[in-house]
Amino acid sequence: MIIARVIGEAVATQKDERHRGRKALLVQPVNPDGSERGTTLVALDAVDAGTGDLVLVVTDGFAASTGVGRPQSSIDMAVIGVIDHIDVADGSAPNPRLDG
Amino acid sequence: MIIARVIGEAVATQKDERHRGRKALLVQPVNPDGSERGTTLVALDAVDAGTGDLVLVVTDGFAASTGVGRPQSSIDMAVIGVIDHIDVADGSAPNPRLDG
Amino acid sequence: MIIARVIGEAVATQKDERHRGRKALLVQPVNPDGSERGTTLVALDAVDAGTGDLVLVVTDGFAASTGVGRPQSSIDMAVIGVIDHIDVADGSAPNPRLDG
Amino acid sequence: MIIARVIGEAVATQKDERHRGRKALLVQPVNPDGSERGTTLVALDAVDAGTGDLVLVVTDGFAASTGVGRPQSSIDMAVIGVIDHIDVADGSAPNPRLDG
Amino acid sequence: MIIARVIGEAVATQKDERHRGRKALLVQPVNPDGSERGTTLVALDAVDAGTGDLVLVVTDGFAASTGVGRPQSSIDMAVIGVIDHIDVADGSAPNPRLDG
Repeated sequence: MIIARVIGEAVATQKDERHRGRKALLVQPVNPDGSERGTTLVALDAVDAGTGDLVLVVTDGFAASTGVGRPQSSIDMAVIGVIDHIDVADGSAPNPRLDG
Repeated sequence: MIIARVIGEAVATQKDERHRGRKALLVQPVNPDGSERGTTLVALDAVDAGTGDLVLVVTDGFAASTGVGRPQSSIDMAVIGVIDHIDVADGSAPNPRLDG
Repeated sequence: MIIARVIGEAVATQKDERHRGRKALLVQPVNPDGSERGTTLVALDAVDAGTGDLVLVVTDGFAASTGVGRPQSSIDMAVIGVIDHIDVADGSAPNPRLDG
Repeated sequence: MIIARVIGEAVATQKDERHRGRKALLVQPVNPDGSERGTTLVALDAVDAGTGDLVLVVTDGFAASTGVGRPQSSIDMAVIGVIDHIDVADGSAPNPRLDG
Repeated sequence: MIIARVIGEAVATQKDERHRGRKALLVQPVNPDGSERGTTLVALDAVDAGTGDLVLVVTDGFAASTGVGRPQSSIDMAVIGVIDHIDVADGSAPNPRLDG
């Protein structure tokens, strides 16, 4: 899984029927200290995550479609957890929720 | 999923039988603000997307072959949605259709 | 899928039994304009592609093993189409066969 | 698989039911000589690994969910081994446990 | 598949039961001319490859676990062939075994 922050939503009227009722969230991958990295992705929401939330994103098709309760559908990334806090051994990571 | 813009088509006469009737679209990955990133990919079309459309692309084999309604076929990327607009929390993202 | 050019072959005497009779082609990923990008990969041939051909390569295990007609085998990349031409909206892409 | 060092844990109260009882470990990919590379990932723990351990991480959904004994669940990375030592042919790799 | 050279072994006492009897080889991805690229990976051995061998590595979970004869296990990379020689169209590639 990767750590990401929810930054918005992609609205598509023409999409796979099996996606209906699930938001396509824009998620920005971040490092454990909250700094951004890499490119923005789009993940189906399985946990009612909101903008600003730090989340766990699965990036494998099988795992993702199972995560949103729709196996056998065309989903390759899903938000499957909202992170409360990150514990790093050296204590340098801030509480991710305070970065929002 | 990734966000991409359709920029053309790859025409192959010698291809997998199970691809017939589906366009192999050239898709250029883009950032939420519409700027290009990464390398051009080829994705089978599942939603009758056209050149200039901003689309959602699944990049996992299982998800992709399911997305185009042909499970068990040799498809690893598919265009499964046409994006109407992208909402970013800070309001900085332009309407993607206006970038076309 | 990615676009690549066939540049050679990797010959392995000690390999998976299920690969026999299929060439392990060296494929160089390219951009739509024919310029090279990224690192050379090895893909099983499903369409009798030859050196210099511009091809479509699937890079997902399930899609690839299905593409070469050997599901349930240890194949993760396959050449599944020979490209005749690439149409890019702005007309800047040369006929890929002329780059060979 | 990739080699990584466990550097902490991500605590999520809102997550997939099938993850319960498994830690979501923060793992930092490293080179064989122990130097860090790439970005920090989150992997479910299948072997009771602890902070500072050098571990083997599978990064494929099917392999990962099987590794933690929960096939058909939304897991795409798992810690499936604790490394005792790394033998490199030229003898340059230090004992990874001494790097902790 | 990718081309890699075997450079050593990772020894893990605490690992998935289904890996037993298979070496976890350190493999360094290389270009067709034998030069190194990217980061060192760990792949289960399916062909009794040895240090210095140039090998074919599958990097997909389904393909890898099938390659080592243990489907349904937590394996995401496997050495499935020992390369004898690489033929590149322009004749510039040296015999890979001579680079060892």
